[in-house]
Amino acid sequence: MTSSQGFTAEKFAPVRELFDAMLDADPAYSAQLAVYVGGEKAIDLVGGPNSSVDSVTGVFSCSKGVAALAFSLLVQDGHVDLDAPVASYWPEFAQQGKGAVTVRQLLSHQAGLVGVQGGFAMEEYNDLPAVADRLAALAPMWRPGSGIFGYHALTMGVFLEELCRRTTGERLQDVYNRRIRVPLDAGMFLGLPESEDHRYRPVLFDEEPAPAFFDPFSIAGVSGNVQAGNLLGMPNVRSVRAEGSTSGAGVGSADGLARVYAGAITGVDGVPAYLTPETIALMAEEQVWGLDRVFCDTSAFAITFMKSHPRMDFGSAQAFGHEGANAAMGYADPMYGVGFGYVPAKNEEGTTTGRALQLSAAVRTVLLSS
Amino acid sequence: MTSSQGFTAEKFAPVRELFDAMLDADPAYSAQLAVYVGGEKAIDLVGGPNSSVDSVTGVFSCSKGVAALAFSLLVQDGHVDLDAPVASYWPEFAQQGKGAVTVRQLLSHQAGLVGVQGGFAMEEYNDLPAVADRLAALAPMWRPGSGIFGYHALTMGVFLEELCRRTTGERLQDVYNRRIRVPLDAGMFLGLPESEDHRYRPVLFDEEPAPAFFDPFSIAGVSGNVQAGNLLGMPNVRSVRAEGSTSGAGVGSADGLARVYAGAITGVDGVPAYLTPETIALMAEEQVWGLDRVFCDTSAFAITFMKSHPRMDFGSAQAFGHEGANAAMGYADPMYGVGFGYVPAKNEEGTTTGRALQLSAAVRTVLLSS
Amino acid sequence: MTSSQGFTAEKFAPVRELFDAMLDADPAYSAQLAVYVGGEKAIDLVGGPNSSVDSVTGVFSCSKGVAALAFSLLVQDGHVDLDAPVASYWPEFAQQGKGAVTVRQLLSHQAGLVGVQGGFAMEEYNDLPAVADRLAALAPMWRPGSGIFGYHALTMGVFLEELCRRTTGERLQDVYNRRIRVPLDAGMFLGLPESEDHRYRPVLFDEEPAPAFFDPFSIAGVSGNVQAGNLLGMPNVRSVRAEGSTSGAGVGSADGLARVYAGAITGVDGVPAYLTPETIALMAEEQVWGLDRVFCDTSAFAITFMKSHPRMDFGSAQAFGHEGANAAMGYADPMYGVGFGYVPAKNEEGTTTGRALQLSAAVRTVLLSS
Repeated sequence: MTSSQGFTAEKFAPVRELFDAMLDADPAYSAQLAVYVGGEKAIDLVGGPNSSVDSVTGVFSCSKGVAALAFSLLVQDGHVDLDAPVASYWPEFAQQGKGAVTVRQLLSHQAGLVGVQGGFAMEEYNDLPAVADRLAALAPMWRPGSGIFGYHALTMGVFLEELCRRTTGERLQDVYNRRIRVPLDAGMFLGLPESEDHRYRPVLFDEEPAPAFFDPFSIAGVSGNVQAGNLLGMPNVRSVRAEGSTSGAGVGSADGLARVYAGAITGVDGVPAYLTPETIALMAEEQVWGLDRVFCDTSAFAITFMKSHPRMDFGSAQAFGHEGANAAMGYADPMYGVGFGYVPAKNEEGTTTGRALQLSAAVRTVLLSS
Repeated sequence: MTSSQGFTAEKFAPVRELFDAMLDADPAYSAQLAVYVGGEKAIDLVGGPNSSVDSVTGVFSCSKGVAALAFSLLVQDGHVDLDAPVASYWPEFAQQGKGAVTVRQLLSHQAGLVGVQGGFAMEEYNDLPAVADRLAALAPMWRPGSGIFGYHALTMGVFLEELCRRTTGERLQDVYNRRIRVPLDAGMFLGLPESEDHRYRPVLFDEEPAPAFFDPFSIAGVSGNVQAGNLLGMPNVRSVRAEGSTSGAGVGSADGLARVYAGAITGVDGVPAYLTPETIALMAEEQVWGLDRVFCDTSAFAITFMKSHPRMDFGSAQAFGHEGANAAMGYADPMYGVGFGYVPAKNEEGTTTGRALQLSAAVRTVLLSS
Repeated sequence: MTSSQGFTAEKFAPVRELFDAMLDADPAYSAQLAVYVGGEKAIDLVGGPNSSVDSVTGVFSCSKGVAALAFSLLVQDGHVDLDAPVASYWPEFAQQGKGAVTVRQLLSHQAGLVGVQGGFAMEEYNDLPAVADRLAALAPMWRPGSGIFGYHALTMGVFLEELCRRTTGERLQDVYNRRIRVPLDAGMFLGLPESEDHRYRPVLFDEEPAPAFFDPFSIAGVSGNVQAGNLLGMPNVRSVRAEGSTSGAGVGSADGLARVYAGAITGVDGVPAYLTPETIALMAEEQVWGLDRVFCDTSAFAITFMKSHPRMDFGSAQAFGHEGANAAMGYADPMYGVGFGYVPAKNEEGTTTGRALQLSAAVRTVLLSS
């Protein structure tokens, strides 16, 4: 019988049993799971050959959720008004008829700026202000304000970062470090410092078989930066994870993810919550729902954050978070007072029947019955 | 060969044959079917062990459709403007940023007020003004005006009733009785009087197997009032059916349903239609269509009324009505001059392949070929 | 081994191989395929017993795309403003509360005017101004501006033609002939002249088995003009194809389709492009996406033009075109500099796995690897 290592508060024994059963069923499976409830650690487990207590690895688009936590502070402090035109902070954005696009539309995947034709080159990810310039010059791929939305996989972080630079003069990663990561001592990095790089475990992944045809210039092809090849290996490049591009190059542990989300809503270990309920209401309000133009499947988004819905059922109506391409997951659920983090060593199925969502359901089952 | 009892106008013999075949195929099956065409009774049938000619039973959300018929009179009489803010009639509704939400948005399932966290307690259904107060104080579960909509299973009736109280001082049930039920002598009750209670047949239902996990604080969980347990038994509680909460506690017969719908568009037995074509155009205009945030499947709604669409194909583009959780169905179809009612004794499948929709198609087939 | 006849530029040999394999797999299969790249002919092939080099046949709703190319000239010349109310050009259109419906909404399938109850009679197609009068008097089948859209199969051409008449005094077919067809010498006709009628090959089609029940007064039933019977035979009536109703009665060859689309974006054989990039941006911008109220499946539309999406994957995000009921396809893709035409002799599957889309993917594969 394979077992996880770490801490589980007594009443969460059923969650540990489920996690152990997953480990037992697949000797190659490795992952971390961490949960805070009411600001206190409830679960902090690790299991399998490729994860350890203190290891960090790529969490891909979970980075967007973490970046959105930092961005929430800009809204809270009055630097950004969600209903203002983007161009009021970033004049160049008004090109190609985008003058009226609001921050709310841009950050809820409605602006149709999912990428650039031909894709971004790898080295561009180390100069995101230049990428922002390219995006500012683009025409939208659909009519903003039409109600169409689609996942901005690789550009959402650029927008969050550029809006931070334009409104505060600071890098979003620096705001995150100063206001969230350092005070909480959280193992979730938007830009992994050299000093912590020894904790990094390379992302494991299988090359997916090539589809019959995937047009790199289609909306989905541009959003997925198809011409750049498989993105799953990117955090394994030191310069990429050092830059910590918030679209997808963050690295962290399950505890790091859970800690920054718990810190937002309940605080952690006596550090008070860094977001107010008013800020959470603004940032976690569901903005769009329906058939995503990129996924051609259902999505629900708040301001950057994913919202729970049947295809991605991670929490109550109040929950907000983000998954990553490897099925890593971080979220906060104010209804349950939960901060949740899950980080697998290798990419896996991330939707309804995936492990993170099963573990989330097990946590909620315990809380509902206690 | 099992047979139905009752009346069928000669040309509708194929409909009776279909109904008889359904009865023949399942000895436990019991239901009533009634159809008016051009204001005259065309079909009034009953069959099976648990339904009788004059029996009434729970029709669940068909109650919303019946309530919307009564509400139509408020629009017709100028008491309510669909484009006015709800708060102009009900100032407390403006709480939590809902000041601009219009009657149209609220009554077409766009306001994101599908229920309360933790669910309503059974006894609350007997004091709906207090429930209205709770709902007025709520923040929407999504951003009103975003285009998101989702079925307001248990709160729609509260809104219809509160808007009636606020604009006329009367209970919606009283408007319904005075203006519709009594003049038409219809066996469809929003509040079953003690004097008629001997006609009540308890709703039969199977307990559904529990799903793996259904978060009571998710949007669908809140809408379904998951924490209150199975709602199918509620009309069997005398106080619930006596109050006749219009979200789902109406009781009636198929003839009652068909009669109030026929009365709206063609009149019945010489009583003139109580709605004008102008009112019908306002109330039956399709407002929303697409993936319902609660069902995560397709829905189409007018002002409260369901509209026919492929998943729920009950009529022409002009048809308006409502189904219930037990697959009871009531609708009017001005294109065919039809009022239709179907009430099964036990809950059954209500979508595309369900019996009510098959019978509706059979009725239309007759009318199209004659 | 069955082979196609005609021209293929050397690097497109894989496309010809695919087309030949299709011909080889089905001796009854007949079709034309034509592709222009950068304004020069790259592929012009024909195969099978029922198509020949110079033959033309019905291309059904591909006619809408061709009509939209001509309509683009009205936008380019300033005759029509997409954001103006339709009624500003066509006052009678304001009936039934449609005064605020914009040209953009009408021409992106949002106005809910998909047909008339009871269907159009065949002879009405020869007097489209009279049909326009009928449509101007209609109430929408859903609320315009609600975000609902659904395919206007038979009325879109009427709107394009009436707006042309109202703003220029000319027939849209005449604008098309003078500005596009004649200068390009293209075998794509909106109204086949007597002098060219010897080239016409009758459309072949199988009668589809009747569905269980299809309400002719449902939205889909009205859009499909169900009461008029099978529309696939209509271009075989000389008067119908002579009139060239732009909703669906155009006839052409694959080369004709490819030529008018290539002429729009790159010009052909030294004739300069007749549309400017600015006009293309206006006309090809995606306006609506999601569950189509008529198809009850996904659609994506620009101004009249179809946009590529997973169910109909014919090109890059810049591509714009239209398929027909027989799976004929015409499109332009500015990203690849391609004009594409495909015309089968008999109706076939037109979505994802269909031949036109396979051939389109093969063309793009060649262009991406060269």
